[in-house]
Amino acid sequence: MAIPLPVLRTLPSCLRAKKGQVTVTLWQGQVVMDVTPGWEAAKRGEVYGVALDLGTSKLAASLHSLATGELLASGGMENPQISHGEDLLSRLSYAFSPDGRGELQRLAVKGVNHLISQLAEEAGVPLGRIYELVVVGNTAMISLFLGVDTSSLARAPFSAPVRGPIDIPAESLGLEIAPQANVHVMPCVAGFVGADAVADILALGLHQASRRRKPVLLVDIGTNSEVILATPDGLAACSCAAGPAFEGAQIKHGMKAVTGAIERVKIDPVTLKIEVATIGNTSPVGLCGSAVVDTVAQLAQAGLITPQGRFTVKAKPHLLGHGRQRHFILVPGDPHHPQITITEQDISQLLLAKAAIQTGIHLLLSQEGVKPSQLKRIYVAGAFGRYLNPASAIRIGLLPPIPPSRVTLVGNTALAGARLALLSTPLRTQAARLAHHIRFLDLARHPHFNNTFTSSLFLPSNTSGS
Amino acid sequence: MAIPLPVLRTLPSCLRAKKGQVTVTLWQGQVVMDVTPGWEAAKRGEVYGVALDLGTSKLAASLHSLATGELLASGGMENPQISHGEDLLSRLSYAFSPDGRGELQRLAVKGVNHLISQLAEEAGVPLGRIYELVVVGNTAMISLFLGVDTSSLARAPFSAPVRGPIDIPAESLGLEIAPQANVHVMPCVAGFVGADAVADILALGLHQASRRRKPVLLVDIGTNSEVILATPDGLAACSCAAGPAFEGAQIKHGMKAVTGAIERVKIDPVTLKIEVATIGNTSPVGLCGSAVVDTVAQLAQAGLITPQGRFTVKAKPHLLGHGRQRHFILVPGDPHHPQITITEQDISQLLLAKAAIQTGIHLLLSQEGVKPSQLKRIYVAGAFGRYLNPASAIRIGLLPPIPPSRVTLVGNTALAGARLALLSTPLRTQAARLAHHIRFLDLARHPHFNNTFTSSLFLPSNTSGS
Repeated sequence: MAIPLPVLRTLPSCLRAKKGQVTVTLWQGQVVMDVTPGWEAAKRGEVYGVALDLGTSKLAASLHSLATGELLASGGMENPQISHGEDLLSRLSYAFSPDGRGELQRLAVKGVNHLISQLAEEAGVPLGRIYELVVVGNTAMISLFLGVDTSSLARAPFSAPVRGPIDIPAESLGLEIAPQANVHVMPCVAGFVGADAVADILALGLHQASRRRKPVLLVDIGTNSEVILATPDGLAACSCAAGPAFEGAQIKHGMKAVTGAIERVKIDPVTLKIEVATIGNTSPVGLCGSAVVDTVAQLAQAGLITPQGRFTVKAKPHLLGHGRQRHFILVPGDPHHPQITITEQDISQLLLAKAAIQTGIHLLLSQEGVKPSQLKRIYVAGAFGRYLNPASAIRIGLLPPIPPSRVTLVGNTALAGARLALLSTPLRTQAARLAHHIRFLDLARHPHFNNTFTSSLFLPSNTSGS
Repeated sequence: MAIPLPVLRTLPSCLRAKKGQVTVTLWQGQVVMDVTPGWEAAKRGEVYGVALDLGTSKLAASLHSLATGELLASGGMENPQISHGEDLLSRLSYAFSPDGRGELQRLAVKGVNHLISQLAEEAGVPLGRIYELVVVGNTAMISLFLGVDTSSLARAPFSAPVRGPIDIPAESLGLEIAPQANVHVMPCVAGFVGADAVADILALGLHQASRRRKPVLLVDIGTNSEVILATPDGLAACSCAAGPAFEGAQIKHGMKAVTGAIERVKIDPVTLKIEVATIGNTSPVGLCGSAVVDTVAQLAQAGLITPQGRFTVKAKPHLLGHGRQRHFILVPGDPHHPQITITEQDISQLLLAKAAIQTGIHLLLSQEGVKPSQLKRIYVAGAFGRYLNPASAIRIGLLPPIPPSRVTLVGNTALAGARLALLSTPLRTQAARLAHHIRFLDLARHPHFNNTFTSSLFLPSNTSGS
């Protein structure tokens, strides 16, 4: 049985304090995690763990009792690495600057420490009794969190800097939980397809052949998005650099999906009357990602924009400004409330983001010989996905043409998968195996990538008429 | 196969540098120690290891090729912890002060880093290619080196803070060799009987039953001394707090056993003419431990001191000074050379030190039912032991009464044992097993300790007459 140095250092006094009576906390029956003096029957169940999703934009985590599995607290925060760029590529290039890699590693750890300490305080759990942390994220975020050289992600052929799974002591990363706590980094697949995709699969049970009898598609939408196809032949995946537009970034009146954000937009194609619904039913503050998708779908539906995303003659009377800065008024505003509009520039941003995902879905389905109509179900995961209007997503081409009723919004499945792995070691073994067997589609080297991407920049033609 | 974080962090760029061609250094086929770009046939054998003896007074180390076993450099230096006390107990009490334990740990590591970098420079070996360090020392030195709580050594019943063996990464201790290098701390026995005793046994092969057909005694003399008895029934050991007198400390004209130190003293019992021999045959500078032993033996032999170590009437004409400060002139000195004398105080210090060891030997032999005359051999180990005159050691009672020809001086066997363990993993397994089976004699709790110690403070009566 291994005794880590931090435990060893205080062991002799522990053994003496209560005449040799101690409470020992073991990890998988192999490693001594903690020794405390006396026999603390009450503390028997006081072992805790954290599941963590390292998103490019957002860190999300949940704190659990490892004795009962109970969820004690959960929360999220902005990824502090955002100070070095909203998208992955800015951060990967920053990682090349002197100590850039170290700085990004420390920022990630700082954020994680902050988030975990918040959860622990909320649940009244001592940080020193958190003995396990299961981490998921895309390959870039995982590598930057570990401080691993990311040069293989900065130029083609992109390859995952780490495959994993990896188990390392918390202390060696600078994490402020029990120093000897085990950090389990879930396995990555290839390129940018990381442990988050593996966790998605675990959460939805797609690794079970019975769940794949008919083809199922999973789209995890984020700054870096993953597309996973499950068929009777197995699993295939690719990643798409969608950028942060779906998170409301780089959109003039964009915002995160929080209270006050418009989540639904409806435009009457005849009267052009506009109705909006906000999260929390408050007065509107801005547009979250799903509202931008809705707006573009509705503008197209009403014949107010071309398939290229330019305003039509019909829209002209309703526009303010000039050129690319022309904007369409969604909420007129008043002295106490902001005017909310959408610009042609915003529409372009959204079309770029949707083109990235549309390309991934199209090429992955082609590779696997699956037609959209064969898809039994499309799962949409990610924070953004919680408010998405499936019909609008299909209308703009973000999702392939299937009946909207077959689309299911599943929320943060990456975190859900991390939770499962936190509470079940057999699932960790399964995860390692399945990560190895996923067929990886490298979009960057795909001969049809450029063509497909360029044609995906347009709105599907059947939606442009009213 | 485990890949430590420091290796993982640079792995991706290594893999790219020479088109995937890399040289991998493995530890015991289990842990990736190093990955360097390209195939370096020439560097195949460039793997190095260090054996280290953490003595209370002195650090001693040797640098080896792990490919061939060859000794490339060896050396020693004062233990930098000496700034917090020459003996173990001063350091153990300093360890209780705020950050005392941390300070002593850093000092030990600083010394070790200094010594290893000297050896590496001498041998032209890059520090980053030293992948293994085998450490021996008494239980206190081992604990202070690891930063382990030593309170169990500060008050009775003394128990070893660590048993071991322990394998930990160099980086976690602050050692400046390959960060992922393995530090193998050899197993300790009990109380103050540490890994040095186990290494002594390995070096002399006393763990092999064939070597124990007749009883053999090993006395490793240092600030903390170990006594080990090997018999057909097994191994038994105790430790004795001799203090640093044998290292020349706390003796008025005492010095370490280096060039210029008197190593032999002869006093004609009739003429009282004194002859001295120095290390390196230079003019005398001071007395090393073996010369103090010789002097006391010769003074007793010539009837110049009583069994209590006081100068007799016969000595009076040859003394300078008054009371306890009276001193006997060994070298008269001249304008260019120092006068060298021995005081009653010096003699008391030596008798205290020899009483500690004599008590240990006496009680260990009694416990095991072995008479001194049955001893086939006495091995004297330790830096001091290299210059000892066995006849004098027997005459003052430091060693039991046996023919001096049965005494063998073996030098630093603790370091020799560490070397064996550095180069042979089966021997590490044997060491762990034998450490468990050594019968430990706890002198501090022995009912006859006080009596035996008090009577051991005298010189044996048969030596007091001429």
